[in-house]
Amino acid sequence: MMGLEITNVKTILTAPAGINLVVVKVETSEPGLYGVGCATFTQRYTAVADAIDAYLKPFVIGKDPQRIEDIWQTAAVSGYWRNGPIMNNALSGIDMALWDIKGKLTGQPLYQLLGGKCREAAAVYRHADGRDLGAVEEQAQRFIEEGIRYIRCQWGGYGGRNDSVPPENALPGAYYDPAAYARSVVSLFDRMRARLGFEIELLHDVHERLQPIEAVRLAKQLEPYRLFFLEDPLAPEHLNALGTLRSQTATPIAIGELFVHPQEWTPMIAQGLIDYIRVHISAIGGITPARKLAALAEAFGVRTAWHGPGDVSPIGHAANLHLDLSCPNFGIQEWYEFPEAVREVFPGSPVVRNGYAYVNEAPGLGVDIDEAKAALYPCRNDLPAWTLARLPDGSPARP
Amino acid sequence: MMGLEITNVKTILTAPAGINLVVVKVETSEPGLYGVGCATFTQRYTAVADAIDAYLKPFVIGKDPQRIEDIWQTAAVSGYWRNGPIMNNALSGIDMALWDIKGKLTGQPLYQLLGGKCREAAAVYRHADGRDLGAVEEQAQRFIEEGIRYIRCQWGGYGGRNDSVPPENALPGAYYDPAAYARSVVSLFDRMRARLGFEIELLHDVHERLQPIEAVRLAKQLEPYRLFFLEDPLAPEHLNALGTLRSQTATPIAIGELFVHPQEWTPMIAQGLIDYIRVHISAIGGITPARKLAALAEAFGVRTAWHGPGDVSPIGHAANLHLDLSCPNFGIQEWYEFPEAVREVFPGSPVVRNGYAYVNEAPGLGVDIDEAKAALYPCRNDLPAWTLARLPDGSPARP
Amino acid sequence: MMGLEITNVKTILTAPAGINLVVVKVETSEPGLYGVGCATFTQRYTAVADAIDAYLKPFVIGKDPQRIEDIWQTAAVSGYWRNGPIMNNALSGIDMALWDIKGKLTGQPLYQLLGGKCREAAAVYRHADGRDLGAVEEQAQRFIEEGIRYIRCQWGGYGGRNDSVPPENALPGAYYDPAAYARSVVSLFDRMRARLGFEIELLHDVHERLQPIEAVRLAKQLEPYRLFFLEDPLAPEHLNALGTLRSQTATPIAIGELFVHPQEWTPMIAQGLIDYIRVHISAIGGITPARKLAALAEAFGVRTAWHGPGDVSPIGHAANLHLDLSCPNFGIQEWYEFPEAVREVFPGSPVVRNGYAYVNEAPGLGVDIDEAKAALYPCRNDLPAWTLARLPDGSPARP
Amino acid sequence: MMGLEITNVKTILTAPAGINLVVVKVETSEPGLYGVGCATFTQRYTAVADAIDAYLKPFVIGKDPQRIEDIWQTAAVSGYWRNGPIMNNALSGIDMALWDIKGKLTGQPLYQLLGGKCREAAAVYRHADGRDLGAVEEQAQRFIEEGIRYIRCQWGGYGGRNDSVPPENALPGAYYDPAAYARSVVSLFDRMRARLGFEIELLHDVHERLQPIEAVRLAKQLEPYRLFFLEDPLAPEHLNALGTLRSQTATPIAIGELFVHPQEWTPMIAQGLIDYIRVHISAIGGITPARKLAALAEAFGVRTAWHGPGDVSPIGHAANLHLDLSCPNFGIQEWYEFPEAVREVFPGSPVVRNGYAYVNEAPGLGVDIDEAKAALYPCRNDLPAWTLARLPDGSPARP
Repeated sequence: MMGLEITNVKTILTAPAGINLVVVKVETSEPGLYGVGCATFTQRYTAVADAIDAYLKPFVIGKDPQRIEDIWQTAAVSGYWRNGPIMNNALSGIDMALWDIKGKLTGQPLYQLLGGKCREAAAVYRHADGRDLGAVEEQAQRFIEEGIRYIRCQWGGYGGRNDSVPPENALPGAYYDPAAYARSVVSLFDRMRARLGFEIELLHDVHERLQPIEAVRLAKQLEPYRLFFLEDPLAPEHLNALGTLRSQTATPIAIGELFVHPQEWTPMIAQGLIDYIRVHISAIGGITPARKLAALAEAFGVRTAWHGPGDVSPIGHAANLHLDLSCPNFGIQEWYEFPEAVREVFPGSPVVRNGYAYVNEAPGLGVDIDEAKAALYPCRNDLPAWTLARLPDGSPARP
Repeated sequence: MMGLEITNVKTILTAPAGINLVVVKVETSEPGLYGVGCATFTQRYTAVADAIDAYLKPFVIGKDPQRIEDIWQTAAVSGYWRNGPIMNNALSGIDMALWDIKGKLTGQPLYQLLGGKCREAAAVYRHADGRDLGAVEEQAQRFIEEGIRYIRCQWGGYGGRNDSVPPENALPGAYYDPAAYARSVVSLFDRMRARLGFEIELLHDVHERLQPIEAVRLAKQLEPYRLFFLEDPLAPEHLNALGTLRSQTATPIAIGELFVHPQEWTPMIAQGLIDYIRVHISAIGGITPARKLAALAEAFGVRTAWHGPGDVSPIGHAANLHLDLSCPNFGIQEWYEFPEAVREVFPGSPVVRNGYAYVNEAPGLGVDIDEAKAALYPCRNDLPAWTLARLPDGSPARP
Repeated sequence: MMGLEITNVKTILTAPAGINLVVVKVETSEPGLYGVGCATFTQRYTAVADAIDAYLKPFVIGKDPQRIEDIWQTAAVSGYWRNGPIMNNALSGIDMALWDIKGKLTGQPLYQLLGGKCREAAAVYRHADGRDLGAVEEQAQRFIEEGIRYIRCQWGGYGGRNDSVPPENALPGAYYDPAAYARSVVSLFDRMRARLGFEIELLHDVHERLQPIEAVRLAKQLEPYRLFFLEDPLAPEHLNALGTLRSQTATPIAIGELFVHPQEWTPMIAQGLIDYIRVHISAIGGITPARKLAALAEAFGVRTAWHGPGDVSPIGHAANLHLDLSCPNFGIQEWYEFPEAVREVFPGSPVVRNGYAYVNEAPGLGVDIDEAKAALYPCRNDLPAWTLARLPDGSPARP
Repeated sequence: MMGLEITNVKTILTAPAGINLVVVKVETSEPGLYGVGCATFTQRYTAVADAIDAYLKPFVIGKDPQRIEDIWQTAAVSGYWRNGPIMNNALSGIDMALWDIKGKLTGQPLYQLLGGKCREAAAVYRHADGRDLGAVEEQAQRFIEEGIRYIRCQWGGYGGRNDSVPPENALPGAYYDPAAYARSVVSLFDRMRARLGFEIELLHDVHERLQPIEAVRLAKQLEPYRLFFLEDPLAPEHLNALGTLRSQTATPIAIGELFVHPQEWTPMIAQGLIDYIRVHISAIGGITPARKLAALAEAFGVRTAWHGPGDVSPIGHAANLHLDLSCPNFGIQEWYEFPEAVREVFPGSPVVRNGYAYVNEAPGLGVDIDEAKAALYPCRNDLPAWTLARLPDGSPARP
């Protein structure tokens, strides 16, 4: 293996499900030996691609792909200013690809390098949505029939865009009413628990759409419904309110899908303010920081719930799962059912059976990318509307 | 008494009730003067025996048995590394035996040396278990008829292995479902309070089988049932969550049967995070540290509830009781009814009458060991299955 | 590799340098595939051996050696009571051997599995001792000539047993005078800096031999001499004083060679009270917890300085070094020059060249044990005298 | 021993050295079996005597003298309002006498009941005073020749009533100038260290005569002189300033001779704000609370330095010493050389040899009172002048 080098880095943009994905392929001096990583920041995908192509690619070419920690540490500070979602995602693409290479070099699925399986598979939660309560309940029932035991219930889009709670008094252009949304969530879980009982685990995602004290109030109101967790109740701008939230309710708190800086997660974990850390692994820089974050969380009794919707590629989902299988403090895995087109572009994508997600047993991450098929699904730069919510008075709302 | 010396130390292993017990006998230069101590770490009994025979025995032979504090302090650090259940139990065997000798030397039951009785006897709690709610209730009723006024109610094993909550979706090898367990506890106490009323004191032991926030939630949910205390709601690995637990519920908290290091108990007591300290006295090193721990607890309004199941020998139970009788901040004593074989091996074992435990009035601890009878019940190294619980996904659970 | 199983566990006791070492060999169902681990608690070596042979051996036989995390987690709680130096060392023996096997299985030196090298070698510090200042200086000069750039200066044994500070007024049996020791350290560094200048890094080990405020005072007095760090200024019993120490001096603090429980290290790291964590890796349970501890430390700007004197076997030293090479927050490595007999028993032992320690590039830990040669050096149970220090009034001193 | 009862309580007032002492004698139903205790609050001695004779005597007659803890707890709250120096001293007289009885009953010196000796004798410090620096130095030299190694240096009375710092600008009636006092202390230690070197331990007693920030400043200024400790730098009214004091200097802090309430000592010990606790044992209620206080202090690395001047009777001094011998965290013992008249009144009084204080080996406290001789030295109610200091402007100063 003497003289193994990184010889090329390719950034592949593809949107087989209509969601822009950024994938990195790191090639080496050993014929046929390459790795793939997820660098998906779907809303700024070209900037991530540029950060890779213009900066990280020349930085890593010629380096030893086995020296992952060294490459991570030096790349992270190579632009002096660091962190943030663009640079972290770019770095994640390289980092995951290097771990993929290391797995292939050793002939082992990645979980083996991380200490081996300490569970057979990762329990997942699915997202039940709908425009009315009946629709949410029907969706939940379908999941239950499939063997899913953890269901995130939302009503009409993340922020309560329900027919039953129209923003009647809203000014033109307004999108949602936080107070109406908060009330609707309580009625949602009142209905779900009445219909589904308590043996199924229910979750809810606030999606950072409440002001701090409103989040505290909602968490308290939801306590009788025994949520598995309440997701992202606070925006990153409002983390100072976590202490108040923590002191008032036993509703478990999951937070972090927007985190891009260690100052967001380290203090809250060390202070015991949360129960689940759910960062988007590529948004914090990949597997290298994520496995350390898992260790940090373990030291304080916090479990993992890595971010896993459609804007994580199957490669990123595989990274999630290899960590899930090998970390004792795994909590739950968010799951998104890949459409067939995604599976075709990404052979080896993880699968869910009876509520548990499984990786395949191929070396490394176990997922590849079919570049020819990927090219069939070009990305499109449609600015997402849902991130641009306004309150009834027309003022900007936290997404 | 000039020249009194320790002349021999014997480690006696016996299992008259099928539970491995480790007993230490310290002999002195005065004919017939010896003491006995409990060093029972039932799951690692041969390692404790080795720690005594190979290290503590040569360390103490020739020393003055009256100098208990000096022997404790020097023995505790004689291996440089200290603490932990094996070394603490080994040291406890010596320490209790020395206090037993001191009592015999002075002709006094040990409680007299500790300041004299400040109560006549120690109220005990008993353990009511069963595979269904009816069985638990029947067991509780039998205890009430015997005069017991404190009953720990468990349902189908510590971890909720109830017929009514089968882990249907669990992967093979799974053992219990924490969420199902937590729900079952609430229904258990709902029934018990409905049938038994509020004049009987009820307790419950979580046995460290919940994640932190789940323990907080359970403690809050149990608040209407007015538990005497909730036992070991958190694992030693999760003590950082005690502050959250404390801030959310007035359910009294008892903790500590697994403690083996002062850093586990000192901060939580000084910070007022618990109500009862329930260490296994031999696991912290015997009577010498336990009486200081009782004083520490008294300074912060914490009461004692020393660990006292079948894996404490009658000698250890006597040590518990001599402290119970003489400490003003005694709270409650866990009790296990010794089978007849245990009483035969350990003449002088404490007794319970009408819900109160009594020591006899013989000098020292008041309990002896019949070595010939002890030899009839050899220990067996059966690895315990119950410590190896797994969650439904197959991952290791805290026992 | 289907069906790979642990088939045997052997505990090997050997003392080629007169220091009792405990080594574990884990054999597998694949012919010739085995791993070795260090389980050295030199002062209680037979108890560690018993904990392995009687409990861990039957526990792990038949299990998949690749599932290290699972084995670690379940073994750690399999005796219900956990932690402490005997059980942690026993578990470390297994754990290191499993990582050694994983390295051999993958054909990689262990540092590769841990993320790859982020430095070429690990800078070491050596121990300069002597009965007078001249002897310490001469020893330091010899090290400097060998290329060593970090030197721990001690004067006449750890506790100041100097000719120049005889405990004249001491009662019979007294061993050392903490005040005289503290004064002597200041004069030691005054001389060393005058002779050696400030370009060489100097360290000092208090070896937990001062009361808290005396340690604070010494750390302040040493500030002008710019120590690289002050080692173990407080005993584990006095960790509550770290805040005072921290608030008064910028002398860097290294602590932890006696740690055996997460409650010792987690709070102080999270509170930023120390600069270097220097646990004895086998005393905390091996590589599995150590790599997580390194990640925890990294999150709080604390660097590693793993314990590495003669009571760590070359296998344990190799474990230290594989972590040193792959952890970005490595600080310094304590080093002990293996006598030739040790190198013969442990082929592949790490070496130091020009002040840096190197592992070899063989798969796994890279160190083996020659069982036939090991048998030539039987262990002896000599109770160590140095752990039994007494103060001038005859009272026990912390060693 | 069945039926042993307290039959009488006598309060004995005597002033063989011109200092009013209060001694309690508790008699029992067993002929010749009695105990003695110290209840000396010299400035309010008749009130203490009244508290004993009118309240505690009838409270304890008929009770079992072996039940010390029970008597202490019930007596302490028997007047509903509790604590304070009169009631605590009264209770101490009973409490010490009961421990004395228990020792006699068991035939053991008290230290044996407290765990046995962990040192041979207790190192003492003596008080060197004088109107000028030369006189202080001469006194110190005399102590050194006697083998004393710990010397408390004061200059011209506690508060700096030096000829060299006359309160020249003071208003009539003023007694001392805190600023002049503080300056004088620095010059005192500058001289003492220059003459005596650093091998002798020096102490200083502020005697609560400074405002908080002045105490902080003095403690910092004294740091180069390496005091063994600075005694009572703050008045009980100013304990809130301990945190500031602690954060600014490594001068060891001893505090507590005026303490009469657990709220004075418990928080500061648990917060690690002091190094030595030096309560007047009878002023906190006797041996029963003092041994618990020692245990509390041990848990936080604080050592004992019980108050021991001439207003502690030899019985109280013996109580101090029995604790000193048996507590591992003994620090130092204040000592006062009993005049011959005191030794005649109190046969068996402790002695100092070569800087160490020794108790005799008689059962119990080992000190008796000769009532006939005691009667030869009646107490006199001279209000002490030194407690009534005023500042230069005529305002009251803290004593």
